[in-house]
Parts: sequence; structure tokens; C-alpha cells
Amino acid sequence: MQLSSLLIAIEVGGVVAFATSGLIEAMRKRMDAVGVFSVAFVSAFGGGTVRDLLLDRRPLFWIEHEAYLWLVLAMALTAPAWLPMALRETGARLMHVADALGLGLFAIAGTSIAQASGMSPLVSALMGATTAIVGGVARDVLCNEVPQVYHDHRPYAVCALAGSAAYLGLAAAGAGAQWASAAGVAV
Amino acid sequence: MQLSSLLIAIEVGGVVAFATSGLIEAMRKRMDAVGVFSVAFVSAFGGGTVRDLLLDRRPLFWIEHEAYLWLVLAMALTAPAWLPMALRETGARLMHVADALGLGLFAIAGTSIAQASGMSPLVSALMGATTAIVGGVARDVLCNEVPQVYHDHRPYAVCALAGSAAYLGLAAAGAGAQWASAAGVAV
Amino acid sequence: MQLSSLLIAIEVGGVVAFATSGLIEAMRKRMDAVGVFSVAFVSAFGGGTVRDLLLDRRPLFWIEHEAYLWLVLAMALTAPAWLPMALRETGARLMHVADALGLGLFAIAGTSIAQASGMSPLVSALMGATTAIVGGVARDVLCNEVPQVYHDHRPYAVCALAGSAAYLGLAAAGAGAQWASAAGVAV
Repeated sequence: MQLSSLLIAIEVGGVVAFATSGLIEAMRKRMDAVGVFSVAFVSAFGGGTVRDLLLDRRPLFWIEHEAYLWLVLAMALTAPAWLPMALRETGARLMHVADALGLGLFAIAGTSIAQASGMSPLVSALMGATTAIVGGVARDVLCNEVPQVYHDHRPYAVCALAGSAAYLGLAAAGAGAQWASAAGVAV
Repeated sequence: MQLSSLLIAIEVGGVVAFATSGLIEAMRKRMDAVGVFSVAFVSAFGGGTVRDLLLDRRPLFWIEHEAYLWLVLAMALTAPAWLPMALRETGARLMHVADALGLGLFAIAGTSIAQASGMSPLVSALMGATTAIVGGVARDVLCNEVPQVYHDHRPYAVCALAGSAAYLGLAAAGAGAQWASAAGVAV
Repeated sequence: MQLSSLLIAIEVGGVVAFATSGLIEAMRKRMDAVGVFSVAFVSAFGGGTVRDLLLDRRPLFWIEHEAYLWLVLAMALTAPAWLPMALRETGARLMHVADALGLGLFAIAGTSIAQASGMSPLVSALMGATTAIVGGVARDVLCNEVPQVYHDHRPYAVCALAGSAAYLGLAAAGAGAQWASAAGVAV
């Protein structure tokens, strides 16, 4: 299973974005170290893992690219150093940007991977949505909240899905990436 | 993997029933479009998906029968039109009937599929219970509530499991279907 | 896949410990029979099931060793008889001991099984942590609480992970088992 370099860049971006959002949420809930690590990992890898399980795709993407694990591990270990500063600078926007970016990037990665596995367009779009949404939903469930993406009445997720649909239409990541960036900027 | 037409009818009934319950619950929580779709899909397909993953059964039942996806999609899209009217007519009973019907139908479908995969009676009964319960439990977890089926002290689930056991005893769907209908009517 | 007898003993211990913690939690929430059974099963088998799914390891450990299912079933059925008495004698400590014991035992079992599947040390340690943590987290999510292990700021989980790391270092279950016992006793 060869991913183009563009797809890998997209995936790394999504992992970093969701790990950040998981770290913010876990710290806000004053969780201990186990909680912070777990929530960061689940946010970053939950969506892709469920996608890989549903598609019966092995090895899982984070076992294939073990560097992702080290990346999130390093982010979680160093979070006390950079996260409070980043939050002070940006306020609540950082969380929204991280969430929106992760949604858009993972939607594209999930859609293209499902399509490469020979799924139909509807199933591919659903897999993209699954990849994008599950990580954040699992993060919010673990923190005992109604998933944010379900009640914020904001256009991120719709943009992400539109990007996913556009990707299917064009079968070219370029257009999809533009949508995702647009979603991120539109905060 | 060939399902008899009866089994397909049972499965469609269960999907429709649980999708309805998911739509009601998501709307009650005033979720946005993403939430409504997600909760409807998870309610309708969660139980069967977990069963298929545990049994290592591919393709997943909703990839095999893509029409199910279109059905739930159509139900979610048209929900604003028919759901409020249906609720006004029936009140809270609609939710209970949908839940009970779904439980009974999925318990039978899950049990017979597990048995067809060569599982032992105990494992088959558990798979039936899993298929029946997971969708509703996931719906309630996403809506941040203690799963209804766990504390309503009502006999639905027990009836569904009894139906599942009866199915195993008779190895004939007829008796099981009667139990499920009984459970649905007994609201 | 042959497990040494020591590993089986460790697994049985973990299953019993987590089933106990699930029973306590479900009863505290005044769940009905369906809830008590579900929570006990999810607590006892959740971690190992997720591990087996992620490793694509079949049959699942509780389908391979069906006796585990009967064991938890028997525990749940007889819980009204022995659990209140045990709780009166030991108070809240029983829950903590059960949790800590389960964490330590499952961390070792998960780590060694992942290693036997040819995973790298980092992935093996993560699988150990997954096996140990998922059962308890799922239990708390079903009971609609922030997972205990995430905010108790207690050293159980860290001890369990240390045991898991020690196991990897020594590649000998002896040392790991000692850590786990230490964690259990240190309550």
C-alpha cells in the first residue's frame, strides 16, 4: 500500500492537529498523565484505526508508520512546555483551528484510502467522514461531553465532507486540500 | 454468505427501527446535521459492525448491502418532514417501540449469523446480544447519557435475549420473530 | 498460539479482577440485569478484545478460552450473593484492589502477546497499556463518568506500565508479575 508523499504530509498534519486538540481537552479536564497520553493517542489515531479495522487494512497505519507514535509521544511529553504558551497567544481559537484542520485532512486521507481499497463512492465518503470524526468524538466521549462536532452548528464538518466529496469528484487531492485549508482559515 | 430473505427482512426492520430511535434522540438533543447523521448511522449499524468485526466477517453487512446505507441516508434527509408528525401522533411510545423492535430483530439476526459462522451456542447468544445492544448503547454514549437499556428495568432486552435463546433452541427463525413482535407489542 | 500456563493464570486473574470492578460499578449505578451483565463483560473482555482486533489475532481470546465467558457469567449470576458481603468487609478498597490488580495483570498479558506477534517494543508496550486500560475506561464510559484511571492521580497505571516496560526489558514474566503485585498491594 503506497501512499503518495502528499497523502503522508496530509496524514501527519491531521495527526498533529488532533493530538493537539486532545492535549488541550485533557489538560482542561485536569487529567493526570495517563489521561493526557490516552486522550492524545485516541484523538490522533482513533479515526484512522476505526477506518483500517472497517476496511480490514493491515498493518494499521500507525504500526506501518511507527514514527507517528513517537511524534505524538514527543508532543505529549513536551506539552507542558509549549502548550500553555501557545494557548495564551491564541486563546480558544487554537482548539478550533486544530479541530478543523484535523477534520479536513483526515477526511481527505480516509476517502482516498477507502477508494484505493476499491470501495464505492458512498462508502469511501463515509470512510472519510469516519476517519475525520471518530477521533474527536472519542476524545469528547472520554472527557464525558456531548461530542463537540455534533452540536456546534459550525460549518467545519460540512466543509470537510464537501472537501471529501470534491475529492471524489475530481479524484485529485489538490482541490480537497484547498477545501480543507479554507475550512481551517474560515474559523 | 447467503442470508435467507427472511433474515434480510429482519435486518432491514432492525436498521429502520434503530435509525428512527437515533434520529429521535439526536433531535431531542438539538444536534446539528453532522450529529443527526452520525447518531442515526451509529445506532443503525453499530451493533452489526461490532458483530462482524468480532467474527472477522467481511465484507461488513452494510458494505455488502449498500442499499442499507442509502436507506438510512434517505431517512435522515427526510426526517424533518416525517419525524415531528410521527412523534406528535405517538409520543414517547414511538421511541420505545423502535428500540424494542430493533433489539428483537437484531438479536435474531446476530444469533443466526454467529451460528452460521460455526460459533458455539453461548458465543452465538452473546453475539446476538451484542448486535442488539451495541447500537443503542453507542447512541446513548454519544448523547452523553447512561445507556437506556441498562437502567430502564423493562423487559425488552430480556425478551430479546429470550427470543435469541429460543431461536437457538428451535434453530428456526419463526419462533424468534414471534418473541420479538411480542416484545414490540408489549410496550 | 500457545500461552504458557503462567500467562493463562495472569489472564484469568485479570478477567476476575475487572469483572469484579464492573459488577461493583454497575450495582452502584443501580443498573438492571442487562446493564450489570454488559458492564461486567465489557470490563473483563474489552481490553483484550481491542488488543486482539488491533493485532488481527483470531480467534479472540474469549472465543478461544470459552471458559472465561462461563466464569464471568457465573460471577455475575452469583454477584447478589457474595458482592454485598465482600463490599461490607472491605469498603471502597475492594474496587481499587480489583482495578490495580487487573491493570497490572492485563498490562503484562497484553505486552507479551503483542511481542509474540512480532510487534516492536513501543507497539508492544502500547498494546499492554491498551489491554490494561480499555476495559476500565469502557466501564466508566458506559456508566457515564470520566474514566477513573484518567483523573485519580494515583500510581496504579504508572506502576502497571512500569511493569510492562520491565517485562519488555527482562523478557521474563517473573519481574513483571512482581511489579503488578506491588501495585496491587500498594493501595
